[in-house]
Amino acid sequence: MQEVYSKRRHRLKQHMVDYPLEALLVQSPASRYYLSGFELHDPQCNESAGCLLITLDGDHLLTDSRYLEAGKTLFPEGSIFVYTRDRFRQIREFISKAGVKKLGFDPQWMTCEFYWALQEELVLHPVKGIVEEMRQVKDEQEILALGKSCALNHQVFAGLRKSIVPGMSEREIAWEAEKMFREHGAQELSFPVIAAAGPNAALPHAVPGNTVLQENDHLLLDMGCRLDDYCSDQTRTLWMGDMEDPFYRRTRDLVRRAQDMVLEWMGPGRSVKEAYDRAVAFFAERGVEKHFTHSLGHGIGLETHETPSLGPSARGEFLPGMVVTVEPGLYYPGWGGVRWEYMVLVTGNGVEVF
Amino acid sequence: MQEVYSKRRHRLKQHMVDYPLEALLVQSPASRYYLSGFELHDPQCNESAGCLLITLDGDHLLTDSRYLEAGKTLFPEGSIFVYTRDRFRQIREFISKAGVKKLGFDPQWMTCEFYWALQEELVLHPVKGIVEEMRQVKDEQEILALGKSCALNHQVFAGLRKSIVPGMSEREIAWEAEKMFREHGAQELSFPVIAAAGPNAALPHAVPGNTVLQENDHLLLDMGCRLDDYCSDQTRTLWMGDMEDPFYRRTRDLVRRAQDMVLEWMGPGRSVKEAYDRAVAFFAERGVEKHFTHSLGHGIGLETHETPSLGPSARGEFLPGMVVTVEPGLYYPGWGGVRWEYMVLVTGNGVEVF
Repeated sequence: MQEVYSKRRHRLKQHMVDYPLEALLVQSPASRYYLSGFELHDPQCNESAGCLLITLDGDHLLTDSRYLEAGKTLFPEGSIFVYTRDRFRQIREFISKAGVKKLGFDPQWMTCEFYWALQEELVLHPVKGIVEEMRQVKDEQEILALGKSCALNHQVFAGLRKSIVPGMSEREIAWEAEKMFREHGAQELSFPVIAAAGPNAALPHAVPGNTVLQENDHLLLDMGCRLDDYCSDQTRTLWMGDMEDPFYRRTRDLVRRAQDMVLEWMGPGRSVKEAYDRAVAFFAERGVEKHFTHSLGHGIGLETHETPSLGPSARGEFLPGMVVTVEPGLYYPGWGGVRWEYMVLVTGNGVEVF
Repeated sequence: MQEVYSKRRHRLKQHMVDYPLEALLVQSPASRYYLSGFELHDPQCNESAGCLLITLDGDHLLTDSRYLEAGKTLFPEGSIFVYTRDRFRQIREFISKAGVKKLGFDPQWMTCEFYWALQEELVLHPVKGIVEEMRQVKDEQEILALGKSCALNHQVFAGLRKSIVPGMSEREIAWEAEKMFREHGAQELSFPVIAAAGPNAALPHAVPGNTVLQENDHLLLDMGCRLDDYCSDQTRTLWMGDMEDPFYRRTRDLVRRAQDMVLEWMGPGRSVKEAYDRAVAFFAERGVEKHFTHSLGHGIGLETHETPSLGPSARGEFLPGMVVTVEPGLYYPGWGGVRWEYMVLVTGNGVEVF
């Protein structure tokens, strides 16, 4: 397994040579894990478990004492630097002593505090998303893991369709989903379950509360898990009862038709931004575009939300091996909303829905 | 409930007048929530749900369309700015138009990318931890919530003592704990359960794996939940069996005596750093200080780890109303480790263990 990581670091170094860049500091937990297997999570968003110093002729793990033993299972002890107090200064001194003059870093991850401490001694060179870009295209093992994670997602949706009944609260439904994921092997959820009943479904990122699911109303379920380290993320909007509301049906049909249309069109070489634009255009032709309030989807892998974002600012093309979500939605404050989300793999000649 | 938030913002503004500071951008999710009730969590560490612009004569929520409806339940619509694409530029223009010339921000939270975009038009003034410092001293409601969260923590420990048996894997134990928390009302875990059997207990932040708990070995359990929004965090190290190993017993006794000694000494006006120094000195007198590899504890509240950190870089004194953990530990790679963690409230004349 260690070989996977050294191969990835080798590929990264080829990119670094092209830049050219003699050294890169990797702070993103997912990128750190992708390149080394070290700690997929930081303890908190404002507290790092460590970073990698990748140089053309060596790699170092910079961490604190809590993670030393974990680090030793992945790095030779001589390649681990343990900072104690005043960590920004200690890191700067370590990097300097390692002979690095010019250090690449990601301005999306580095805080001003860290930057100011490093620049006292180092020349800093911003490089945005170099590892994130590598991570966009998944290898065979990653695609297998994503497929497995999404298969469990399907299984939990199937289980929930049987076990959810009107009268349950959003919170109960969310916990039911979480238990199913965990009891079928998920390491964790990839994000907290969104279970939004009726009007709450108008909030794309609703937090499940005590609202009770009504008979003959709609329920938006957006959920995912982490299995074999990889995330899944799917949304369905279900009608609970046998008297389907015509407005719900029309909205759901529009959402699903938009999704079908985009999936039909998507494939390698197609513009990422155009996928979004086409969904907007589809809704605009039907006069509902202002109810489609978010992007069309996002890359998914070690993180739930990765690049590329299928939104108005997207650049570049779909590449074979990318795994992205396609999740159009329409939201009506006061009434609710419908979102339908699939995970799809970009193949050699189109896309494959997981 | 809204009143709590406006009172806190009012207190913050009094600090801002003292600085002086005409405007402050609040990015930390916990601080944003503390001041407004808006979204305790960001969707991911590298993806913000929004930030607050606090000025002496008004407050604004800056967010994206996914959170507009949630924002409207807390802010008048005229106080919400929804950014769409190129959000850093849009935020800069919005702040500029609001008449702000000099903007306070926290360099621990602001990324270089955001900073560079803002400084094109604004004078930026770094202010570290101004809201975090307010959050250190808890009010009555917060203390009640922390007590309730810790009471559930005790309850789950009591339940686990009955249900954990040798032969279970760390992963099974962790899931058992999580289920108990959730089924007794916790909103979520405050951090993933650490269940480390035998030698794995030498890793202070071990990730539960397939290691099976042995009869007559030790198990380190570090866990916590979020209840009524507030976190709990406690550690126990248990012996599983009736043939207690003398080295385990000696180590546990040292850890617990260190903890008792510090708790006895702690109180309002005492130096935070000295609490740590005293624990180190206690261990040094017994020749084991190099096995105490982390800080002595941390503040706890809306986040598991808050200021103050009871470590070598700590400044300032304990104040009545602070809630902190006290968690000495001793770690022996190859053998395992012992940590014992309580949550304590600093009172008017000492501390009270929750």
